[in-house]
Amino acid sequence: MKTRMTEMFGLDVPIFAFSHCRDVVVEATRAGGMGVLGTTRVTPEQLEMELKWIDDHTDGRPYALDLALPQKMGEVHMLHERETTLPPEHVAFVDRILRDAGIPELPAHEREQLAEYASGYRLTAQGGMELIEVALRHPQIKLVVSALGIAPKEMIDLLHAKGLKVGALIGSAKHAKNQVDAGIDVLIAQGMEAGAHSGSITSMVLWPQIVDAAAPVPVLAAGGIGRGRQMAAALALGCEGVWCGSIWLGTRESELSPDMKERFFAAGSEDAIQRRVFTGKQCRMLRSAFTDAWDAPGAPTPLPMPQQGLLVTEARARIERARRKEYMGYYVGQIVGDMKEETSTKGVIYDMLTEYSDAVEKLQQQMEAE
Amino acid sequence: MKTRMTEMFGLDVPIFAFSHCRDVVVEATRAGGMGVLGTTRVTPEQLEMELKWIDDHTDGRPYALDLALPQKMGEVHMLHERETTLPPEHVAFVDRILRDAGIPELPAHEREQLAEYASGYRLTAQGGMELIEVALRHPQIKLVVSALGIAPKEMIDLLHAKGLKVGALIGSAKHAKNQVDAGIDVLIAQGMEAGAHSGSITSMVLWPQIVDAAAPVPVLAAGGIGRGRQMAAALALGCEGVWCGSIWLGTRESELSPDMKERFFAAGSEDAIQRRVFTGKQCRMLRSAFTDAWDAPGAPTPLPMPQQGLLVTEARARIERARRKEYMGYYVGQIVGDMKEETSTKGVIYDMLTEYSDAVEKLQQQMEAE
Repeated sequence: MKTRMTEMFGLDVPIFAFSHCRDVVVEATRAGGMGVLGTTRVTPEQLEMELKWIDDHTDGRPYALDLALPQKMGEVHMLHERETTLPPEHVAFVDRILRDAGIPELPAHEREQLAEYASGYRLTAQGGMELIEVALRHPQIKLVVSALGIAPKEMIDLLHAKGLKVGALIGSAKHAKNQVDAGIDVLIAQGMEAGAHSGSITSMVLWPQIVDAAAPVPVLAAGGIGRGRQMAAALALGCEGVWCGSIWLGTRESELSPDMKERFFAAGSEDAIQRRVFTGKQCRMLRSAFTDAWDAPGAPTPLPMPQQGLLVTEARARIERARRKEYMGYYVGQIVGDMKEETSTKGVIYDMLTEYSDAVEKLQQQMEAE
Repeated sequence: MKTRMTEMFGLDVPIFAFSHCRDVVVEATRAGGMGVLGTTRVTPEQLEMELKWIDDHTDGRPYALDLALPQKMGEVHMLHERETTLPPEHVAFVDRILRDAGIPELPAHEREQLAEYASGYRLTAQGGMELIEVALRHPQIKLVVSALGIAPKEMIDLLHAKGLKVGALIGSAKHAKNQVDAGIDVLIAQGMEAGAHSGSITSMVLWPQIVDAAAPVPVLAAGGIGRGRQMAAALALGCEGVWCGSIWLGTRESELSPDMKERFFAAGSEDAIQRRVFTGKQCRMLRSAFTDAWDAPGAPTPLPMPQQGLLVTEARARIERARRKEYMGYYVGQIVGDMKEETSTKGVIYDMLTEYSDAVEKLQQQMEAE
């Protein structure tokens, strides 16, 4: 098949597979789509290792990098400063949830490791440029996406100078013009049903609005896509390809623990709720005893980003370590309701293309019939 | 074109136009689709008049009737009992909003008229059967839809015995099986972006789930549809037609006041919010100073249905009469963001079919291209 996305990047199919897991990126890329490596909280050294591994397994095919680089992150603190820099009632509230649930502290060395890892919260444009420099040493990378807001101008200019394309996620047509003016080559229109940070407008309404507002810049559809009928719908709505995230979480290549996958397979679409509990920004995640605690009467209002992440990072690690499934959560979109058992990345793409093709043929027959 | 819906009802196009306005019903029916008259708070005598008028203008074509017949309405009271049957703090809160805004009382005779009209809140299965009896005297009616829950068995049996089809609106795949078991002929799958009462799952995710759960019962797509690309998406997702409501509110045939239309044309999709303010159940409506007052700190939680409706009915009438636009609201879906100027029902259908046809042709070209 052919869309402006397959042409722009030389893909067989216009399926973009966003994942923090390099195995998903590799499998999607090998299947003729475009793997997109998400790089929240990664050092340049770690990124170099990841990209090397992807290069070694993808036979020269194109893939992409997604940088969560907010332009402003506000005041940033280290995890060990949690008790001194956050409101005491918030700290006490989270501690009480865990104490009431009988979830133990982390062993000291794991707490230290986490503190080091969580220092990646220091995401800045400067840090982003260091990652870009690593990316530029890997010529299979053809696209860099800014997940939060407009990428810094020097970053866009540098990428363009090196022949890469730049993309950006948006959740409202209002933001299309600014992105287009900034020189973005591809917009990813993300509906509210998407996992992780998402807005209030649903894919069905949002995608054509962004397609029209961004024209002639091509648009990828994100939010609510896990199968071929949804891919056909995205193209019918004027998008030039699909950008999927949640659906890979249920594959064997996924980075999630078996416990977390099991919870996803048991969940319905209504269990993927929008809350500010994990990051301080509105985010779609699996409902859990932890999110329920924040919904209960008397619970405090979540802090802004990045303070809320600082507040709950260790709590989430303690819950994971204790394997307290009912408290475990993760970012996921409403298509979690369609995820019922472990799949493979290749299998998802194959099924998606088969169903897409059937859907388009049926549409054609319906239209031609008298 | 041809789908199982055009075949079931002998339509030219599988577009169902829900409206409380008989002019919209007539125009949509004449254009080859199926007008659906919504009948909240109508007496049998009023309904007889409406249907007679529709019959007289539709040349024998099929149309439909939508009954908002909840199976249980809880305790029902008359408007003049508002002060004595509702919590005093709720009554005082609404009165204060209006007083602070300087919105005057209704003249005595208008208040009486409203009280009489609002007595239609006494919606029951018995009342529904009286309306069905009226409908059965109008043989152009080929479909009766139950908007809230499963229709009473005797109603379904009676309609089937007379050769009519029965439909039902649902917002979750969980409800599909019960409806199918009850003998429903058509399901209307309504995504959260829809105007009026809506659930939490978006159209993109919900429609294919209901199509699969209801098979072989055909499904109409509702929520987020106002143009042809969305119609193509609905059919790609496996639906057999589309059910639109909000889009007709911006037509010249619409029942809305010019003031209210003007507010719609100025609104973005993010201004169509889900609240319990109008009816006590989660409903999508235009954001206003009135809904903002209920979102402010210290505002009471809305009452359950039907008490909340009893609480705010007169307030809404006072706001309308005073033409205080910033306080005016109405049920509308997220496609309000695409409604920019007054259109016509016929024009909307014509544009929808043109864009649908273009979208399907483009899909076919994309799939076949190498």
